[in-house]
Amino acid sequence: MKPPRKVAVLGAGSWGTTFAKVIADAARFSSNDDGHPARVVVWARRPEVATEIDERHRNSSYLDGIELPENVHATADPSEALEHADIVVLAVPAQTLRAQLRQVADVLPRSAVVVSLMKGLERDSDARMSEVICSELGLDSSRVAVVSGPNLAMEIAREEPTASVVACEDEEIAAWVAAAASAPYFRPYTNSDVVGVEMGGIVKNVIALAVGMCDGMGMGDNTKASVITRGLAETTRLASALGGRIETMAGLAGLGDLVATCSSPLSRNRTAGRLLGEDLTPDEVVASMTQTAEGMKSAHAVLHLARRNDVEMPITEAVVAVLDGRLSTTDMARALLGRDLKSEQDHRNESDDE
Amino acid sequence: MKPPRKVAVLGAGSWGTTFAKVIADAARFSSNDDGHPARVVVWARRPEVATEIDERHRNSSYLDGIELPENVHATADPSEALEHADIVVLAVPAQTLRAQLRQVADVLPRSAVVVSLMKGLERDSDARMSEVICSELGLDSSRVAVVSGPNLAMEIAREEPTASVVACEDEEIAAWVAAAASAPYFRPYTNSDVVGVEMGGIVKNVIALAVGMCDGMGMGDNTKASVITRGLAETTRLASALGGRIETMAGLAGLGDLVATCSSPLSRNRTAGRLLGEDLTPDEVVASMTQTAEGMKSAHAVLHLARRNDVEMPITEAVVAVLDGRLSTTDMARALLGRDLKSEQDHRNESDDE
Repeated sequence: MKPPRKVAVLGAGSWGTTFAKVIADAARFSSNDDGHPARVVVWARRPEVATEIDERHRNSSYLDGIELPENVHATADPSEALEHADIVVLAVPAQTLRAQLRQVADVLPRSAVVVSLMKGLERDSDARMSEVICSELGLDSSRVAVVSGPNLAMEIAREEPTASVVACEDEEIAAWVAAAASAPYFRPYTNSDVVGVEMGGIVKNVIALAVGMCDGMGMGDNTKASVITRGLAETTRLASALGGRIETMAGLAGLGDLVATCSSPLSRNRTAGRLLGEDLTPDEVVASMTQTAEGMKSAHAVLHLARRNDVEMPITEAVVAVLDGRLSTTDMARALLGRDLKSEQDHRNESDDE
Repeated sequence: MKPPRKVAVLGAGSWGTTFAKVIADAARFSSNDDGHPARVVVWARRPEVATEIDERHRNSSYLDGIELPENVHATADPSEALEHADIVVLAVPAQTLRAQLRQVADVLPRSAVVVSLMKGLERDSDARMSEVICSELGLDSSRVAVVSGPNLAMEIAREEPTASVVACEDEEIAAWVAAAASAPYFRPYTNSDVVGVEMGGIVKNVIALAVGMCDGMGMGDNTKASVITRGLAETTRLASALGGRIETMAGLAGLGDLVATCSSPLSRNRTAGRLLGEDLTPDEVVASMTQTAEGMKSAHAVLHLARRNDVEMPITEAVVAVLDGRLSTTDMARALLGRDLKSEQDHRNESDDE
């Protein structure tokens, strides 16, 4: 398959804008039918953001200090962004995706491959983003790819070396999208396990909240490493129950993403958890942050999915109880760490029976 | 089985001393035949350290600011420490273990269970610590347990909540040791996979060197998370080839220990890697550190084991090349990250073919 001629990116937040830069930088190393690098057009909801990107090659609200390549353009008109696009990248807030797709369904090219950068479950339906895309656009799942991995946007925007995963049921499509997104500082690997890759990105936000809470309570690296380990175990149980592969969870989109998010002071979810651990209420945390901590929105849906599939997720359960005001962070720490002695294997498969 | 009456700890470094505190604190919550808590006796090589522990309940060289429980005693005479011990805990530098065992073999009670806290492979023989113990003492492997997990000693000494793994082929022995080491702030889980638990603790030091190098070169959390993910994958391949279980590597003694070590500024191996990444030579790094970075000593043995078992370990290979002066840290980063596009699965099973 030939490189794309035009790529539309819907959403001009930090990850959408950064991915537009990746695709634009990648395009400079390949050429399409016309011998030109692909044109990348970002749709920004706010006209002033579109103008800044288009004219000054900057997005100062989200990527302060980063210069975008010349072949990144922007518009506040979704039709203009989508027209003739070979690849449509979606990077809007997870809970707004369905409404936004309804608005653009008519102008979205039927032949385009749709790529999701979003990490979250839709509230009420518990649907993954790729499921929302397929159902709203009437697309076959082989035309939808997801990108996930240890991908803190600001580090990629600064061109620090990063690996990622592009997953699509159709491995040729995955390889095509991966090639279109291969910049010198960004290496995507391919995977056909869409469920595993998406679930890794979703649940890690919930686990990062728990790790952030430990941080906020002044706990050390031993404790946080245990929460990460048990968190990945419960993520893996859920992903497996939904048809994902265990190997995916041990890879970049599972373990890798979880570790990057839980290590980074840049992570919004870890930050939100830390504030909760410092005894702010969930409402106070939301009010104090400029960007969404997706884990706070997806946690209930994750737990709901787990219960529907008979999967034990003690950390997610505790995070939801904290978000609902039913459990203090201090009691959460006690519940997570104070179990009866047993074999590690039992622990990993049994319930939080404290 | 009844709680032990006496526990000997050979080695008064930070982990040995901390584990003595754990056992002593655990003993206060149980009682033995006589209705008394177990007596814990630490053997310290240097008489002044033994005196400080025994008389002032402090070990200021290794655990500054920590007060040890009243039931921790110490001596510089190994016979005195070992006499009538039900459990003998070994916490000496890995490369000195065999010589030290030869010195104490005659006075070590034949009925004692021996517990290894050590993480390393013996150079030349490539033997794990439990193998050295069995061969030098003529013990059956069912009498030897190992303790490993996300266990930064200073955090445990400060009584921050920590989970760990006690592994022994004989699950009853594992449970007995775990019970003897269950303090309110220290929760050991049991496992029968001694090979997996030991290999997790050994290879993580090598991976921590690589993560430290990335740190020293100013790389971000995306890069480090990828190295951790790939590092665990190659650790798992080696452990499996030696008979360890994949689930162990996904647990506290694999993933948990790796993440704790790679996150912590307290980790000697990460610190050593950072100095290498800042362009110090291996000799300069050794000279600048007061305690051993075990990964620098075990890396060659790990690679040797891997080659003998036909296991690809590209990160270990790169670390060894840096330690041998055959590769700069900058070239190491390039080699680890600059691969051709391929599927994540292929990547995880194939060689570093760049």
